Amino acid sequence: MKRTLGVCYYPEHWPQEDWAQDAARMAAAGITWVRIGEFAWSRLEPQAGAFDFGWLDLAIETLAQAGLKIVLGTPSATPPRWMLDRFPDMLALDAAGQPRKFGSRRHYCHSHAGYRQAAAQMATVLGKRYGRDPRIAAWQIDNEYGCHDTVLSYSDAARHAFRDWLAQHYQSVGALNRAWGNVFWSMEYDSFDQIDLPNLTVTQANPAHEMAFRRFASDQVVGWNAAQVGALRPLTDAPLIHNYMGRVLEFDHFAVARDLDIASWDSYPIGFLSDRLEGDAAHKARYLQQGDPDMQAFHHDLYRAMNKGRWWVMEQQPGPVNWAPYNPAPLPGMVRLWSWEAFAHGAEVVSYFRWRQAPFAQEQMHAGLMRPDDQPAAGLAEATAVAEELRQMPDVAHVQAPVALVFDYASDWAWKVLPQGADFDYFRLVFDAYKALRRQGLSVDILPPDATGDDLVGYKAVFAPGLATLSAPLLAALATTQIPCLIGPRSNLMTSELSTALPLGPNLPDLDIAVARVESLPPATMRPVAGGGAVLHWVETLEGSAPAVITGEAGAKLLVTNGTLHYLAGWPDTALWDRLVDLICANIARSRLPDGLRLRDTATHRFAFNYAPEAQDWNGQTIPAAGVAWWPLSADSRTG
Amino acid sequence: MKRTLGVCYYPEHWPQEDWAQDAARMAAAGITWVRIGEFAWSRLEPQAGAFDFGWLDLAIETLAQAGLKIVLGTPSATPPRWMLDRFPDMLALDAAGQPRKFGSRRHYCHSHAGYRQAAAQMATVLGKRYGRDPRIAAWQIDNEYGCHDTVLSYSDAARHAFRDWLAQHYQSVGALNRAWGNVFWSMEYDSFDQIDLPNLTVTQANPAHEMAFRRFASDQVVGWNAAQVGALRPLTDAPLIHNYMGRVLEFDHFAVARDLDIASWDSYPIGFLSDRLEGDAAHKARYLQQGDPDMQAFHHDLYRAMNKGRWWVMEQQPGPVNWAPYNPAPLPGMVRLWSWEAFAHGAEVVSYFRWRQAPFAQEQMHAGLMRPDDQPAAGLAEATAVAEELRQMPDVAHVQAPVALVFDYASDWAWKVLPQGADFDYFRLVFDAYKALRRQGLSVDILPPDATGDDLVGYKAVFAPGLATLSAPLLAALATTQIPCLIGPRSNLMTSELSTALPLGPNLPDLDIAVARVESLPPATMRPVAGGGAVLHWVETLEGSAPAVITGEAGAKLLVTNGTLHYLAGWPDTALWDRLVDLICANIARSRLPDGLRLRDTATHRFAFNYAPEAQDWNGQTIPAAGVAWWPLSADSRTG
Amino acid sequence: MKRTLGVCYYPEHWPQEDWAQDAARMAAAGITWVRIGEFAWSRLEPQAGAFDFGWLDLAIETLAQAGLKIVLGTPSATPPRWMLDRFPDMLALDAAGQPRKFGSRRHYCHSHAGYRQAAAQMATVLGKRYGRDPRIAAWQIDNEYGCHDTVLSYSDAARHAFRDWLAQHYQSVGALNRAWGNVFWSMEYDSFDQIDLPNLTVTQANPAHEMAFRRFASDQVVGWNAAQVGALRPLTDAPLIHNYMGRVLEFDHFAVARDLDIASWDSYPIGFLSDRLEGDAAHKARYLQQGDPDMQAFHHDLYRAMNKGRWWVMEQQPGPVNWAPYNPAPLPGMVRLWSWEAFAHGAEVVSYFRWRQAPFAQEQMHAGLMRPDDQPAAGLAEATAVAEELRQMPDVAHVQAPVALVFDYASDWAWKVLPQGADFDYFRLVFDAYKALRRQGLSVDILPPDATGDDLVGYKAVFAPGLATLSAPLLAALATTQIPCLIGPRSNLMTSELSTALPLGPNLPDLDIAVARVESLPPATMRPVAGGGAVLHWVETLEGSAPAVITGEAGAKLLVTNGTLHYLAGWPDTALWDRLVDLICANIARSRLPDGLRLRDTATHRFAFNYAPEAQDWNGQTIPAAGVAWWPLSADSRTG
Repeated sequence: MKRTLGVCYYPEHWPQEDWAQDAARMAAAGITWVRIGEFAWSRLEPQAGAFDFGWLDLAIETLAQAGLKIVLGTPSATPPRWMLDRFPDMLALDAAGQPRKFGSRRHYCHSHAGYRQAAAQMATVLGKRYGRDPRIAAWQIDNEYGCHDTVLSYSDAARHAFRDWLAQHYQSVGALNRAWGNVFWSMEYDSFDQIDLPNLTVTQANPAHEMAFRRFASDQVVGWNAAQVGALRPLTDAPLIHNYMGRVLEFDHFAVARDLDIASWDSYPIGFLSDRLEGDAAHKARYLQQGDPDMQAFHHDLYRAMNKGRWWVMEQQPGPVNWAPYNPAPLPGMVRLWSWEAFAHGAEVVSYFRWRQAPFAQEQMHAGLMRPDDQPAAGLAEATAVAEELRQMPDVAHVQAPVALVFDYASDWAWKVLPQGADFDYFRLVFDAYKALRRQGLSVDILPPDATGDDLVGYKAVFAPGLATLSAPLLAALATTQIPCLIGPRSNLMTSELSTALPLGPNLPDLDIAVARVESLPPATMRPVAGGGAVLHWVETLEGSAPAVITGEAGAKLLVTNGTLHYLAGWPDTALWDRLVDLICANIARSRLPDGLRLRDTATHRFAFNYAPEAQDWNGQTIPAAGVAWWPLSADSRTG
Repeated sequence: MKRTLGVCYYPEHWPQEDWAQDAARMAAAGITWVRIGEFAWSRLEPQAGAFDFGWLDLAIETLAQAGLKIVLGTPSATPPRWMLDRFPDMLALDAAGQPRKFGSRRHYCHSHAGYRQAAAQMATVLGKRYGRDPRIAAWQIDNEYGCHDTVLSYSDAARHAFRDWLAQHYQSVGALNRAWGNVFWSMEYDSFDQIDLPNLTVTQANPAHEMAFRRFASDQVVGWNAAQVGALRPLTDAPLIHNYMGRVLEFDHFAVARDLDIASWDSYPIGFLSDRLEGDAAHKARYLQQGDPDMQAFHHDLYRAMNKGRWWVMEQQPGPVNWAPYNPAPLPGMVRLWSWEAFAHGAEVVSYFRWRQAPFAQEQMHAGLMRPDDQPAAGLAEATAVAEELRQMPDVAHVQAPVALVFDYASDWAWKVLPQGADFDYFRLVFDAYKALRRQGLSVDILPPDATGDDLVGYKAVFAPGLATLSAPLLAALATTQIPCLIGPRSNLMTSELSTALPLGPNLPDLDIAVARVESLPPATMRPVAGGGAVLHWVETLEGSAPAVITGEAGAKLLVTNGTLHYLAGWPDTALWDRLVDLICANIARSRLPDGLRLRDTATHRFAFNYAPEAQDWNGQTIPAAGVAWWPLSADSRTG
Repeated sequence: MKRTLGVCYYPEHWPQEDWAQDAARMAAAGITWVRIGEFAWSRLEPQAGAFDFGWLDLAIETLAQAGLKIVLGTPSATPPRWMLDRFPDMLALDAAGQPRKFGSRRHYCHSHAGYRQAAAQMATVLGKRYGRDPRIAAWQIDNEYGCHDTVLSYSDAARHAFRDWLAQHYQSVGALNRAWGNVFWSMEYDSFDQIDLPNLTVTQANPAHEMAFRRFASDQVVGWNAAQVGALRPLTDAPLIHNYMGRVLEFDHFAVARDLDIASWDSYPIGFLSDRLEGDAAHKARYLQQGDPDMQAFHHDLYRAMNKGRWWVMEQQPGPVNWAPYNPAPLPGMVRLWSWEAFAHGAEVVSYFRWRQAPFAQEQMHAGLMRPDDQPAAGLAEATAVAEELRQMPDVAHVQAPVALVFDYASDWAWKVLPQGADFDYFRLVFDAYKALRRQGLSVDILPPDATGDDLVGYKAVFAPGLATLSAPLLAALATTQIPCLIGPRSNLMTSELSTALPLGPNLPDLDIAVARVESLPPATMRPVAGGGAVLHWVETLEGSAPAVITGEAGAKLLVTNGTLHYLAGWPDTALWDRLVDLICANIARSRLPDGLRLRDTATHRFAFNYAPEAQDWNGQTIPAAGVAWWPLSADSRTG
């Protein structure tokens, strides 16, 4: 497949007389795709029921005439002001009970049936008009579910929908009381209509109650998306896409993806480093203008797992953004690096956000490929260079990675509900594992939590840290696999209702081990490990006959194994992660990379990305800061 | 008196067929007491007025047949969900005006008359059924008043009750205006019904207003407890107990205790270190798995002061808990150490929380003596060892300590209302004094703020730091005592209405001194003291003729004395506290203890407790980490 | 003009029999002015419509007989409790929608028409009674606008007033939509009545919306003040004054001042250091008992700019205060230093707050000149010394400073609405510039943002950092001035609607430069500058032909100039500020001062103020810690 570039464009923001030139310059830059429409409801339907498609028709016509393929967005993330007059109770409420008011975007509760129907109806209207239009080559539904913390809503609509959801799941309130253990603290209910949302309780709510609310809230996003999918499917054959946002974990993306055709995500490497990543000041200063070296790759690999390998970067940072606490510019070369890294991980399209920086409203300080004065911004030349390089490069074909890593949204919810230690964070644990693999140059595929034995075929190692509950398919796969697998810490210790597993977990096949006790540790403390490294944050005491490969203090078992399955009883520091990768991936070709350098293998090439602020030598080549290099690769010389 | 062990048990959480074995194993472990029922309202009265005592009858029968004595709790800390249908306005509101909803526990406002009556009625029902049952050997009323910040409520019920309380106290609104100084900022009221609760004011409310609200809120807890006492007293001769929680200071425990027979408290040493103690990271790391070496002893001494020496530990941490920010396991030996420390301080009973770790709901990560899979947890063997040691030990008889320390809840409220320096904290000041005494091996008795001359008899030193207002009895006692007394800083400078004392305090008998000016200092600053040490946080400028024993900068008087009374004009650092103990306790045998070692003398023995993570040598003996040692002691060789 | 002292006094707080002695002692101390009445509404009108002026008549009589001149305050900052019965909706709401309740002060929303009218009516009543009374020599209107964060209110009254304000400004909602760029995110409105206040939005509100709300809120303060001015003007010829509070920036003081005769401010140097100034711990420890060496001078110079040089210090800290996080005492000498510094900067009156420390209510820990027991506090002797020195000193006449510094409230709002970097703060930037000038001994005049060419006449250098939008008059002045001017960073890059200026700013006359890109940097990072110093927080990339005087990394232009205008493309550190002052002020006599020493020139004298905690040598003289020195100065030997 030929990989291509795209760009996000807002014709409604600019005079119509500028559109043709904009389109021509996009095409001249080598851009193939243009996304439009996803925030334009107030222009598409200025008053309830009064539609205006003239401008959109013209925009489509103008863009298509320049040879661009169009992604048309449904505008449900920005209901216009009159929608509030129609549905005054459509707003989400935050956990403190405050309404989340009109005046920005995503001002709706996923549980509000009226607005859900209105949004689906808008999708129908658009589908009827443009669904068979060949210029509309793809659809985006809504925009960045969960952004601005919009999954968990405590509105009346959410309360009523939650009660319905509970009734459907448990059928009887007695069953719910038993499943949740509501006998504890006399929390038993007599009817579903007595059950409130789990906010504002005197102290911690029942974790089963909170977990049910989390599952419900995720399902509401799935259902919300499905309503528009249902509207569009009969009206179009173009692929349906959603653009997810980095490290948004409050809903199950795998579940949303089942209704879609292509996954995409919005990649803002420098914003993410500043806004939503752990890391000490030295790390953040070193990567200030590049972003974390693994954050993008992780999400690329994650979204590749959603729709059989079909995925895009729908929004790619092209310069300084406006929304992070601090917003430096990318180092020269980083826009090209980020773009190539996405392609090397299998992206079909990398689409920059946005064409021209707007001179007004919330994002006026967010760079585009063009400046607000219509001059080229720094990112445009790099995008143009990528387009040229794409033309010269043979296809960038995906190939299975040697290592699989399991990722599970519900585990994130479980540990947020019941962290036991204030800094236990599932994403961070998985991301630590991912970083450790990448420090040794390994390419990684991400698998869903219900991966089967078939899904594991072809891998040489499997990492599945921190899964709250192991799924039946995965447990079955582990029972028969011959691939070295790392499970733990805190894996399969709970039921799906967030009660304690009995017998005590992890209950792994053919591995006699049980977690007799857990401890959480404050940041300044650690437990040393025999042979190097230490355990932080989280320590388990194991019992059982499985032999230990690595031991902690006083010979305590830390890593036990039956030869294939390995269970890890603590949260490793960097040195211990390196040892674990050495051990689990012993049969995979690896090499310790220079600091900030990362590799990615495709079917035909090895790519190297230098996130470091200084040049790095690798494979006989000096790769400059923010530089990309690639070499042809025979199938048998890939890592792994 | 023979000291005994107990355990907290929730038969309603487990199948009835397990109860007999549980009871047998408790007895086999040497446990004498079992507490039940305090959270079981939804099982005792599943629907309003429909009681079910069958299961409780059976549980009592089963436990008693194993030889266990029963503490029966009134379940008012966990009103069932239907109670909210009866009293929708029974919830407390927080200071921001948000309801504190159903879904955990303690979801009630102490001022709600309807629920107060319903709770008393439940106590009557229980009293009628079990009050004369000899198997019920004690009663616990409610559970952990004030836990989860539940004393101060800003509900409508609280507002109306506060107005009534004010009307009763001041009789006329003019008297209130004058007492509070409401002429300041035109805050004068025309009627009691205009007076609101002191939350959400534009800037600081009148401190007299806040202090009155604090006194009112404490009285509401007293009245709430008294309602159940009033219900039970006619129906039982068994002692009435409440289990207080560590460092909960928002109500006057002495006042609650006046209606009860035995005081008890819930001791979670490791949770408290993580959650509610000041201390630098090194201190917290050193005592991570032991708890602060003085926190338990302080509370033991405090609760011994409540009911003529009768007190228990109602809940003793037996392993990792779930509710602190970080939850490590106790060092091996600490469960035994904590238990023996309580006995050495005079506890009649030490009762572990809980028998078996629950596999569901909020506290599923809170260790018990048994694991959720019904295997013994680490704490059980230590508890069993203590039981055996108790059998071998002659009685552990309390003896008066050489040093008395005055503790006053109202002073904590006063300084929270009017701190003047952001880190002025009454408990911390008193606890610093207590720690200084204990570093020199001294046993301490705590006295209430209205201690009389008779109460002081037999002590060799009295410490009374930070009392906002000295009570008339204590002032009278100070006027005649010959015992060296330390008063100050910030003592008797305010009236009970939280206005400035005139003439300027401390107004001590026979000590010509007045505090002309006070200063608060930020954390990084200090004032050096001649001869060693420094003053932190708080500095007073003294005037008057009393001679100085210790001086600060430029000869400023820091400690003045008339030979008996000593007034301290600042907040000492550790070195200065050591000097003060040397000076005030000059006539008491003392010795500087190794770091982490603590002593406690009973009538017959000296106990040593090693909180350090390494062995310590003392009295010719090596005491291991987490170890306890004791020696027979003749009366004349006690400290002091 | 003869400079004089004053004091704030609350006769309503004290027995009438004490007033005569108080007045006599004020006079004996050399005090000329006494401010009364500004919080006394509940005594002036105890019930609605029932006035009681007897006590005030007597107080005025008593004070005047001692020779004191009276400032009479209107009491609108403390409406009595009954006013809430009249206007239950008069309270402000905070951004979370919570009412800001009765029980302290400033409990009103500036937009509430009913209370605004009631306050003006009270001014009328007072004006009719005392407006022609020669003993009332000045009036103060209200008290400390904006204190306790009281400018921005989210009440219903504010919402309706905001809609009216918008309708008047934009005339059509289409014009508003275009001006704000509401097409972005479909935020378009159909009518003014749909527009809400910009709080509680899901994510950032439109910056134009927020900026309009800021301008509106400032106008509401102006209108509120004007209502009382309108009431008093016909009734009195005495000057009308308001007492502003330090670093309160939420309303445009220049606009309020246009309706008044004299500006005044309330100077609490030690409180400000603790409570509202950036600075590392070492700086705050060094100046703990003195206050920041430039904070007072800055405000003196700021308020001198308001009313043609007529300004007072209405409240001067005389000892420890009560409201900062930490409240140490001034070093001996500081009360005198602060007083003289105000006079050296041109104050007509320095008035201490307060005469006697109150023994009750919120400010009972706030020192006065007298202690609550009616003994002199430390400040009294220093005030008395100043009075004596004033008598001996010839007039302290103001003279134009060599340097002008432009200050603009709207720029503070703009950058608070759209900071782009979390620590971008306009006041801090301007204050850094001010400090740099003062480190070299320069006296400074502050100019309003609409300064004209005439206003610039006589200066040798102009500093105008961080102006969001350059006013037309200032732009015109810059087009013709021959005075070296420093503009930037982030100057004139935005329109007054807070959209991006096009062509890209700064659009300075005769300086070909444009800001092509901006970056914000986290605290730990910086960009080195060729020749010394560094850029922090904020970096701009310049393009255009203007030559660079100073360059940053890789030769990037940092300071460009046309010989007169200099544009600065980043936020300087201290070393770079020193270089900038050297460059822009090359033609002004300067000298690097010892750390903590500050100078101020009057028409006849040079004053030196030693804020350092140790003595400093200067001009052949040793000035002790907290000391003041002055020398006669011929006009040609002034700095500059």
